[in-house]
Amino acid sequence: MLHSESPAQHRSPLRAQVAATRAHSLDLAAPLSPEDQVVQAFEDASPTKWHLAHVTWFFETFVLLPHCPNYQAYDARFGYCFNSYYESEGARHPRPQRGLLTRPSHADVLGYRAHVDVHLERLFGLGIGDEPDVARLIEVGVHHEQQHQELLLTDILALFARSPLKPAYRERTLATASAEPKTLRFLPFERGIRPIGAAGGYAWDNEQPRHDALVHPFALGDRLVTNGEWLDFMADGGYSAPLLWLADGWGRVQAENWRAPLYWEKPDGQWLAMTLEGFGTIDRAAPVSQVSYYEAEAFARWAGARLPTEFEWETAAVSLPVTASHALRPRPAHGSSGGEPRQMFGEAWQWTQSAYLPYPGYKPPAGALGEYNGKFMVSQQVLRGSSCVTPLGHARDTYRNFFYPWQRWQFTGLRLAKDPA
Amino acid sequence: MLHSESPAQHRSPLRAQVAATRAHSLDLAAPLSPEDQVVQAFEDASPTKWHLAHVTWFFETFVLLPHCPNYQAYDARFGYCFNSYYESEGARHPRPQRGLLTRPSHADVLGYRAHVDVHLERLFGLGIGDEPDVARLIEVGVHHEQQHQELLLTDILALFARSPLKPAYRERTLATASAEPKTLRFLPFERGIRPIGAAGGYAWDNEQPRHDALVHPFALGDRLVTNGEWLDFMADGGYSAPLLWLADGWGRVQAENWRAPLYWEKPDGQWLAMTLEGFGTIDRAAPVSQVSYYEAEAFARWAGARLPTEFEWETAAVSLPVTASHALRPRPAHGSSGGEPRQMFGEAWQWTQSAYLPYPGYKPPAGALGEYNGKFMVSQQVLRGSSCVTPLGHARDTYRNFFYPWQRWQFTGLRLAKDPA
Amino acid sequence: MLHSESPAQHRSPLRAQVAATRAHSLDLAAPLSPEDQVVQAFEDASPTKWHLAHVTWFFETFVLLPHCPNYQAYDARFGYCFNSYYESEGARHPRPQRGLLTRPSHADVLGYRAHVDVHLERLFGLGIGDEPDVARLIEVGVHHEQQHQELLLTDILALFARSPLKPAYRERTLATASAEPKTLRFLPFERGIRPIGAAGGYAWDNEQPRHDALVHPFALGDRLVTNGEWLDFMADGGYSAPLLWLADGWGRVQAENWRAPLYWEKPDGQWLAMTLEGFGTIDRAAPVSQVSYYEAEAFARWAGARLPTEFEWETAAVSLPVTASHALRPRPAHGSSGGEPRQMFGEAWQWTQSAYLPYPGYKPPAGALGEYNGKFMVSQQVLRGSSCVTPLGHARDTYRNFFYPWQRWQFTGLRLAKDPA
Amino acid sequence: MLHSESPAQHRSPLRAQVAATRAHSLDLAAPLSPEDQVVQAFEDASPTKWHLAHVTWFFETFVLLPHCPNYQAYDARFGYCFNSYYESEGARHPRPQRGLLTRPSHADVLGYRAHVDVHLERLFGLGIGDEPDVARLIEVGVHHEQQHQELLLTDILALFARSPLKPAYRERTLATASAEPKTLRFLPFERGIRPIGAAGGYAWDNEQPRHDALVHPFALGDRLVTNGEWLDFMADGGYSAPLLWLADGWGRVQAENWRAPLYWEKPDGQWLAMTLEGFGTIDRAAPVSQVSYYEAEAFARWAGARLPTEFEWETAAVSLPVTASHALRPRPAHGSSGGEPRQMFGEAWQWTQSAYLPYPGYKPPAGALGEYNGKFMVSQQVLRGSSCVTPLGHARDTYRNFFYPWQRWQFTGLRLAKDPA
Repeated sequence: MLHSESPAQHRSPLRAQVAATRAHSLDLAAPLSPEDQVVQAFEDASPTKWHLAHVTWFFETFVLLPHCPNYQAYDARFGYCFNSYYESEGARHPRPQRGLLTRPSHADVLGYRAHVDVHLERLFGLGIGDEPDVARLIEVGVHHEQQHQELLLTDILALFARSPLKPAYRERTLATASAEPKTLRFLPFERGIRPIGAAGGYAWDNEQPRHDALVHPFALGDRLVTNGEWLDFMADGGYSAPLLWLADGWGRVQAENWRAPLYWEKPDGQWLAMTLEGFGTIDRAAPVSQVSYYEAEAFARWAGARLPTEFEWETAAVSLPVTASHALRPRPAHGSSGGEPRQMFGEAWQWTQSAYLPYPGYKPPAGALGEYNGKFMVSQQVLRGSSCVTPLGHARDTYRNFFYPWQRWQFTGLRLAKDPA
Repeated sequence: MLHSESPAQHRSPLRAQVAATRAHSLDLAAPLSPEDQVVQAFEDASPTKWHLAHVTWFFETFVLLPHCPNYQAYDARFGYCFNSYYESEGARHPRPQRGLLTRPSHADVLGYRAHVDVHLERLFGLGIGDEPDVARLIEVGVHHEQQHQELLLTDILALFARSPLKPAYRERTLATASAEPKTLRFLPFERGIRPIGAAGGYAWDNEQPRHDALVHPFALGDRLVTNGEWLDFMADGGYSAPLLWLADGWGRVQAENWRAPLYWEKPDGQWLAMTLEGFGTIDRAAPVSQVSYYEAEAFARWAGARLPTEFEWETAAVSLPVTASHALRPRPAHGSSGGEPRQMFGEAWQWTQSAYLPYPGYKPPAGALGEYNGKFMVSQQVLRGSSCVTPLGHARDTYRNFFYPWQRWQFTGLRLAKDPA
Repeated sequence: MLHSESPAQHRSPLRAQVAATRAHSLDLAAPLSPEDQVVQAFEDASPTKWHLAHVTWFFETFVLLPHCPNYQAYDARFGYCFNSYYESEGARHPRPQRGLLTRPSHADVLGYRAHVDVHLERLFGLGIGDEPDVARLIEVGVHHEQQHQELLLTDILALFARSPLKPAYRERTLATASAEPKTLRFLPFERGIRPIGAAGGYAWDNEQPRHDALVHPFALGDRLVTNGEWLDFMADGGYSAPLLWLADGWGRVQAENWRAPLYWEKPDGQWLAMTLEGFGTIDRAAPVSQVSYYEAEAFARWAGARLPTEFEWETAAVSLPVTASHALRPRPAHGSSGGEPRQMFGEAWQWTQSAYLPYPGYKPPAGALGEYNGKFMVSQQVLRGSSCVTPLGHARDTYRNFFYPWQRWQFTGLRLAKDPA
Repeated sequence: MLHSESPAQHRSPLRAQVAATRAHSLDLAAPLSPEDQVVQAFEDASPTKWHLAHVTWFFETFVLLPHCPNYQAYDARFGYCFNSYYESEGARHPRPQRGLLTRPSHADVLGYRAHVDVHLERLFGLGIGDEPDVARLIEVGVHHEQQHQELLLTDILALFARSPLKPAYRERTLATASAEPKTLRFLPFERGIRPIGAAGGYAWDNEQPRHDALVHPFALGDRLVTNGEWLDFMADGGYSAPLLWLADGWGRVQAENWRAPLYWEKPDGQWLAMTLEGFGTIDRAAPVSQVSYYEAEAFARWAGARLPTEFEWETAAVSLPVTASHALRPRPAHGSSGGEPRQMFGEAWQWTQSAYLPYPGYKPPAGALGEYNGKFMVSQQVLRGSSCVTPLGHARDTYRNFFYPWQRWQFTGLRLAKDPA
């Protein structure tokens, strides 16, 4: 096979990225038993095994089957099992029943991954993987798998939080507790016509086309809202004051008896939180997480502020020095003098006041991949930034995440904004 | 009482408007028996009697009690019965149970109306009603009652459509069927920074503050989509093609087996429609109505177009010659040569692609009336224009109506838009 | 028409009974406005107007249409509106939407009743009404209408209890409060083979065939459980003690937060009850009512007793002196010396431990009337006796009423039983 | 440990039974991976791992903790995890979330079993296990574990039937298809007072006290209804004929679109069935299974028969020659001449017309075990016999199984009965 193998040093960056991304998924699953990986925590979540298989199906369906010579599907039944929502790819297993898939087994899914990995390597070896059209599809597959890496962790936390044993996914690190957060400051931004959306590099269709937007003057909080501030909101009766809430939010508070962020409990008179490190005390200095849009919006009103729009957020993000650190966790505290917004990335997704809608001139891609983003453009809110479980390199200034306003199981927090005085 | 009565010729326009609006509500209810008026068609609708009482409670609570000397509440229990959703006004009867209020009786509610009417007259007679602060509240009450006049008709249609007898609210007029609609043309609009929102005159808080918005070039359909075009969409499999639909919309199509607009049925192989004039044939030339946002959005995709944003719609509306006719039904066909958008008002509310969100700098009013609009600003879509059951004088260019994307029982239709070629 | 009219003194008892029964229904509805009569309190209840029309439809469908010469249906659409559940009589309006029938109007339903009454009279005038086959059907119609007379009252109470105004259906009578109840005594009965079921006279199919049953020795409480005893049960934590309850019952207690009988509320620290006489203090000496089987069964366990079987109940009932008083309300205290069970009739239906099942050899009648009782013979419990709203003459020793164990809106109470020591 | 160990030849029958029963559970789980064992097919079913742990918790809680000297609970948290419904044993994990218990792991549950097995052995070694009071509890634990062995298989079938891969639990045996069933004959039984209920030997509380019942003359089908007969019922429109059904049953047929027994599907124009041997053709001669009470009752009506009462069933069962074969699967065809009922045991549980109610004089045992049967005595129907997955030795003539009339996932079939001509 010498002729089809290029020496490692000649391997393309994309090829390396594929290999690294594929390996990282398995690393994330490593602390989990096959039992942990098969169960679905609740309807919105998926089992780890399903994530591992679905991203593999994505490569098989959109890359290997159309472009890899003589490729044979690993198992013809997997399309039904592991298609998520692509209507153009045919019938599929119902989403709420993903947890019933004890078969194919964990071992079989690992076999599926290995099979697809081998053929992706072969595709690169044949020089096809780096052809622009195919490379573009592979790149989509990589970023798609990164999205599921984040979901894998949010979904495992959802599962473990519902377990009476409250197991930890990983050990608590030795890091001392977060330092006391600086006093929140609001950084002013001028009115202007801003270019919004992706200018180049990898981006989803929903970040495009790049277009002008008129952004009114605003002020943006220089850090995220903390757990300590959230405890103050709770202590001040935030969850019992209907006038703070959107009507839909207040309905949800009452129907589901919300009293705190999703994974907080008060077993013995003190609030504790479930995290990937297990169940324990709440770090007052850390950003609050696992709150819904309804909660974030009510908190902002309580604080005499509001949530930013996604354009305001992006305006602030692009004003930062261009560094490689956007996706680092935690972002280093830039020169305290400068008054830069901190914690834009790597802490918690930040709810914005903006509904998830198409940009002016938006066109979904042709073909099945056109189902990727556009069909969700109603009733959801945009979140910006990235979270502590977003894979490195996945976040960017123009990235648009989106969830329903009542959803709480993601690493979702908030940053305040204000109109100018 | 001579001293407190001004001669009719001196009565203020607001006083006349109050009297006319109050009388109009009773005119609308006149064809209905007390039985018709007590029943709630479904959870989103309200009984006629409830509408008649609620708007009266609104005047009593926000105008008479605080401002009318020696005013005594008609019945202290009515606050509980007829408060709609004002948390700051205390506990209230649950919305889904409005149809259980056989007491107070229809006659008692008419007595309530008369009592409040007398005291509103007295307020004007005392000169208080025209004082700016009070006049502002009364004006709110008038526009609020107009909103409920429209709801009264949509809700009665909802009730009669569910009746096996399919009664008509009113007789079909002799008007010949609508003329065959003109070929749909798309009128071009240039990019520009547009002033958006209410500049003066009566307006709701949600139309304010007036602010600039950058509107990209677009083309807007010069008329509404017709029933005939909707039948074409249905015949072409529109309700069976998942790729045309938003994911939430497709879910609803399947769960509720949508096959046509809400009040269309096919009892003997031909589609018929229930309207305020009863159950009968469908006028192909008339604008389609009683469709949800999901349906409107799917239709637009099928038609190779999209829905306009609310700013595009307003841009087109303010480009029309300023006439008093905005609210007339039907709007006369302005100079055919000019290429003006027609049917902006008086036919059907027009779904827009815009989510219902606060304008930049939006502040809800202080006090209970601040609960009026702001707390619904999530998960709903804006509709513009007005419908065939909107009271005369209620519509305007900047008016923002809003409903959830799945709601269908209003007179809601659509106008197409396009990006420039 | 002289030839077809017999003088009143010659009218048959059945003819008189029809007239009296039909008139009594209107008497019961008399205190209610058309608004009161159109609304459905909840899914299990029906509107008064619907009851009035349904019993009329029953006479029209099963008596007049097949047996009255030249009879024309009053309105061909009423079959769809007012059929309750007879599959053999075709499609029908969905039960949960009975409250949407604002049309036909109240006046139209009265016209319907008058039309059917005239033709029933005509049928008797022609001598047909007293022919055995037809007389049997008319008798069914009379007893059927009596059943709905009771339901009319239970359903109006359900409606008024949900009204924030808590209106009274009738005035509280001057009767002094019930006398303090006698100490509960358990009357012993011997083992024996007992004839069970109807021996003659009018009876439903479900009381037949008369058959032998082996009844083990038992002791039966000589009166019903009182409100005062129920308050004791509540005070002793009866609604908080899972071990007292059937598993299904405990599930219901928790899911619906049951704390007292259905229409009891505690607005200001004291339990009050809604009755047909309005909302007020609880008569400790009166039999408890509006309790489910689950509650009755739990109460019995708390009291160290059990509920009787329906055969035990009937054994005790037939042991009473045969008087005309069975259906009187309240039943006079038979000779206090004798140790007779009191309150067998006319107070509250009495839950039994017996599931509602067919008697040995049971055969439903042929034809549509065969749908009357048999198809409900699963998952329900038998109740015996009669209630304070059962029409005079309707009750009898062998009568089997039945409801689901969670249903509470009827006048349902309990009598205790015990195994011999 | 010689002093505490008795030689195997001296071990008590109970001790041997414990060991055999405990080992059999593991045998049943052996074909299943840990993944298969953790998932809950639907709310009524439980995961295999949960069954394995729960029966162990039962021994630990009711036998070892109170009676085994110095016994330490294996893990204090398991009580919360593996209590099924014993209110007197404290809070417990919610039933619908049993499938979320990925922890404790499968291996840990095996460790739990081994720990408890060791101490049960120790208890016998100490001579305590055979003391009457303790032996009685152990016996309960054995029979309880046998019940869960059956549930383990029904629940695994429920899981695999919902899997798109439709895996087989075990291989199809070589046995030729069932022989064509004999023509169904009805065997006559005379009227008589019959002793009903357990006379001695192991029995649940709900089979007691033994008491007399008057059984009317009846005729009982000599075999179970077959799949072939069920296909005839289907072909004759049985699932589309409302008059055949109980009202509740017909509601369920329509709401859940029942068209066949639970695990039958018609993928390509032919009915196939999912069984423990996988998905394949239907054996017309085999007894039908996985049908609800509603379906069984409707079938009987269609066949011009009815279901037997539980007393009729028991009367027939005790009339059979006393052999050890009652629990054998399949029961050999007793002397063909005699006209004996066949298939009483070892094929399918047989729905009876009898509601699950206490026997006269029934008293639940004191203590937590008193929660075992009595609290389910409402709204369920009794089934008699045993099924093809009932453990050997578990069935008996007086055994009363019970399920809700809509439940279908058990091996539940039917036998017809008739009144004498």
